[in-house]
Amino acid sequence: MGEGAVQAQMEALTLATKSGIEWAKYSHRVFIKSILGRPDGGAGLLGHNVRVGGWVKTGRSHEKGRLTFLELNDGSCPANLQVIVEDTVTPDAQLIYTGTCLVVEGELTQPPETAKKQKVELRAQKVLEVGPVDASKYPIAKGRHTLEFLRNLMHLRSRTNTISSVARIRNALAFATHTFFQQNRFVYVHTPIITTSDCEGAGEMFQVTTMFSEAEKREKELASTPAPTEADLEQAKAEVTKCGETVKALKAEKKSKDEIAAAVLKLQTAKDELAKVVERMKLTGGIPKKDKGGFDYTGDFFGRQAFLTVSGQLQVETYACSLSNVYTFGPTFRAENSHTTRHLAEFWMIEPELAFADLQDDMNCAEDYVKFLCQWLLDNCYDDMEFMTKMWDNTALDRLKLVASTPFARITYTQAIEKLLEVKDRTFENPVSWGVDLASEHERYLAEELFQKPVIVYNYPKDIKAFYMRMNDDGKTVAAMDILVPKVGELVGGSQREERYEVLVQRLQELNLPTEPYEWYLDLRRYGTVKHSGFGLGFERMVLFATGLENIRDVIPFPRYPGKAEF
Amino acid sequence: MGEGAVQAQMEALTLATKSGIEWAKYSHRVFIKSILGRPDGGAGLLGHNVRVGGWVKTGRSHEKGRLTFLELNDGSCPANLQVIVEDTVTPDAQLIYTGTCLVVEGELTQPPETAKKQKVELRAQKVLEVGPVDASKYPIAKGRHTLEFLRNLMHLRSRTNTISSVARIRNALAFATHTFFQQNRFVYVHTPIITTSDCEGAGEMFQVTTMFSEAEKREKELASTPAPTEADLEQAKAEVTKCGETVKALKAEKKSKDEIAAAVLKLQTAKDELAKVVERMKLTGGIPKKDKGGFDYTGDFFGRQAFLTVSGQLQVETYACSLSNVYTFGPTFRAENSHTTRHLAEFWMIEPELAFADLQDDMNCAEDYVKFLCQWLLDNCYDDMEFMTKMWDNTALDRLKLVASTPFARITYTQAIEKLLEVKDRTFENPVSWGVDLASEHERYLAEELFQKPVIVYNYPKDIKAFYMRMNDDGKTVAAMDILVPKVGELVGGSQREERYEVLVQRLQELNLPTEPYEWYLDLRRYGTVKHSGFGLGFERMVLFATGLENIRDVIPFPRYPGKAEF
Repeated sequence: MGEGAVQAQMEALTLATKSGIEWAKYSHRVFIKSILGRPDGGAGLLGHNVRVGGWVKTGRSHEKGRLTFLELNDGSCPANLQVIVEDTVTPDAQLIYTGTCLVVEGELTQPPETAKKQKVELRAQKVLEVGPVDASKYPIAKGRHTLEFLRNLMHLRSRTNTISSVARIRNALAFATHTFFQQNRFVYVHTPIITTSDCEGAGEMFQVTTMFSEAEKREKELASTPAPTEADLEQAKAEVTKCGETVKALKAEKKSKDEIAAAVLKLQTAKDELAKVVERMKLTGGIPKKDKGGFDYTGDFFGRQAFLTVSGQLQVETYACSLSNVYTFGPTFRAENSHTTRHLAEFWMIEPELAFADLQDDMNCAEDYVKFLCQWLLDNCYDDMEFMTKMWDNTALDRLKLVASTPFARITYTQAIEKLLEVKDRTFENPVSWGVDLASEHERYLAEELFQKPVIVYNYPKDIKAFYMRMNDDGKTVAAMDILVPKVGELVGGSQREERYEVLVQRLQELNLPTEPYEWYLDLRRYGTVKHSGFGLGFERMVLFATGLENIRDVIPFPRYPGKAEF
Repeated sequence: MGEGAVQAQMEALTLATKSGIEWAKYSHRVFIKSILGRPDGGAGLLGHNVRVGGWVKTGRSHEKGRLTFLELNDGSCPANLQVIVEDTVTPDAQLIYTGTCLVVEGELTQPPETAKKQKVELRAQKVLEVGPVDASKYPIAKGRHTLEFLRNLMHLRSRTNTISSVARIRNALAFATHTFFQQNRFVYVHTPIITTSDCEGAGEMFQVTTMFSEAEKREKELASTPAPTEADLEQAKAEVTKCGETVKALKAEKKSKDEIAAAVLKLQTAKDELAKVVERMKLTGGIPKKDKGGFDYTGDFFGRQAFLTVSGQLQVETYACSLSNVYTFGPTFRAENSHTTRHLAEFWMIEPELAFADLQDDMNCAEDYVKFLCQWLLDNCYDDMEFMTKMWDNTALDRLKLVASTPFARITYTQAIEKLLEVKDRTFENPVSWGVDLASEHERYLAEELFQKPVIVYNYPKDIKAFYMRMNDDGKTVAAMDILVPKVGELVGGSQREERYEVLVQRLQELNLPTEPYEWYLDLRRYGTVKHSGFGLGFERMVLFATGLENIRDVIPFPRYPGKAEF
């Protein structure tokens, strides 16, 4: 480290230590949140010297450029620190442009009474670094932009107030998730992303392959050395026949061992040559196909068809049946041609799995988890939640408070159908009757209107649920549950798993599913089977629920959907 | 919840509350760790009644079956609880088989002096649930199995002591990772798994596609309704010509508007029909190709070639340039035909990115992070680490202690080369000279022999590093760094990123890389550019480093490598 750098670091450290402010350990500055996020709004820091870094949100020039007022944001919180730069500190007139990056050092002072948005502002003493912006070209220069517009600027949109608040809320929900499960002694398990099993046909799957690049390599090779022709093949075959006849003849003539051995060797060489020709004739620029039709995946990376996972549940069950409490948190995929505001081709899911737990335990765990997430945001992200509530959804904070503090309603599917059939003041688009799955409009009616809080619907008809869900004693329903919440509808789906070997095999047969691909899953029931349950929470749904935003493409950094996979 | 279940839950809760033991909230039992993991080894709990669940590790029958001794494990810790079942409690002789699942309730009592491995054992009063095992078929019945053998039983191997310890250590390292970065106010960002950009050609990529399933759908459709023939095409063309001539004729004859309109309509219908035929003729069971050769991806899910990410770095930089401190933790992929003990096709990586930070800051952050991980395991996973040390690598615990407490050595690449050239007592397989990359043997020599602790090598020749690394003033080296550790060699690789627009463009040109795919990345330098740095830590490498195991396939639940993607 150069001497200058050491000195700069020492100075910054001294500044921060003297001021008693939280130090951004690896970047020679203090976080703006550690000033403005204090209970006193920073008032207790008046007179202290600090160094901050960040980007200009807005800038104004006063007194013919003698004074520049900058709103500086470093991403640590939604609030900006007002920075005042006199032209004696730097004459740089470019600082005022939105997006300019600055590192600046100065004294925390009291704003004038007349302009007191915040308890402190920073009087610059040194401008240490500037990353300028050409305001005429900057695509998100000053002004408010629609979320739709920003979706075409995915590499810059985290610089806006909304998307950066969403990023911090998303971060908080992710860490809250780990904290909740770790506190309850669940073990985090990384289930595979590339998979060769299909979780109950949960949806269309993406295929993972190296066959295209292999085909392109072959195409290149063929371009340089062409494949053999039919004539080459005939010639190679003729050579084998000739050598074979020679061997036969020598044997018939009872020639010496050495002579015969030499001829046999020649025959083998001819055979090898023929095999090579046959092999090379198969080389095409295309994708190999099986003789009986269909693609031939034996040459693919994994020697078979492989896909992107749609759920880690089946795999994580193997760990639940030994570590007892486990969870996954990873990306999942659906190759569905869906253009709605609620679906993505790539999204993140949390899937806990609990041994020794039945459906009631599962509901208890899921309810506690969702409540924990809401309380966590209230405790750790209040400023961002206030921002989202003000700008996007004035019910967002109240919704969090409600969910954090109110027991969820719980009704069986059968009761839910009864409730829906009682509705007289409207007509649902999707008809209601026992045996059909609840549509989004039904789910939202139950959560938003009837109960006005989260509601857990459980014991669904077996015919609309997956094979692995535990059969109830009535023979008609399975021990499944969904948590429906205001704003987004279904947030959680879970079930007790069928732990009885014979019942599970029977279910597979009923559904005409082959048992062979599930032998490993059946092994969990064959050897030391255990009552167990689990659920899945769609992480982006939870971020939508918290932020109050409408479009799922705005709550994941780089959304993937049909036709779109930028960067 | 049935009445019986409610009562069972109440009883279990009462038991746990009375005993003051940590309660497994959602499964009516106490964790074995909360008994045996206490500082007193559970001695303070003598006389308390508890309920536990778990799987039998080993069982023995005594006094002609009057007494059964079971070692029960529930995955919460490596230690087993000894459970003693009298035949008056249950006459079930099957309990003793390895792998049997049990829920059992009883009193914690003092073991006899003669057999005192642990401070407490459980005298069963009730056996509530049994998941039996047919010992003659159970693939991992009693006895020790090699890790290689277990790799063919991926769904059962977490039931072994080693793989469950690895799972808990892995879990602890994951949570420690989040804790470290959250404590330092880094925002967790989910970078995309499916990507259309290539991080500096970090390696061969898997392609993600729906083209095979689409081709198969078309094949099915063609099987039911064959594609049109050339004759069909000619006929459709003739019809268009005929209708066109009719229109022309009618116009020439100045017929009525209605008459002409009718003929125009007929022409349009004929044209539509022709278009359909042309479209359907394109249907083949194969993968579409472009006229100029090469596959045509316009019909693929994303309308272009898409891949599995090899690194989230470039994408996460977009968030660092607004939120200042960020990190990723997600799966990454390499489609390399590599069969070593150090490579996987799917692995997890942590990639922090720090704004306002130079290479020294980057090294400080990476060093603190690795130290934090080691200390975390000492604080939170000592029992598992003791097990691994005893069974697999007697230096494992000492290595953690060393790394947690000793400053890492830091030398430039140039110094490292000098040190390696000074080595006289052996010959390296890979020749050493300034400008070549360090091979594994060099890395391990530096970390294991010369420094005998982690060593950070920095300022590498630009020609062996990626385009985005910041050019040093010498014009020959870039601000890159690798952390080399005993046991695994390279654990971390990082760099300061080139934040100067012109220099970055020049680097791209030098390397003959097109700028177009990097325009978005260049935008980060065009608008409010900021000094920033980051690094990547291979998570499985860290688990190898901690556990002391040799093969990376044993430290991830479901390893993927050429020819293998089970489940």
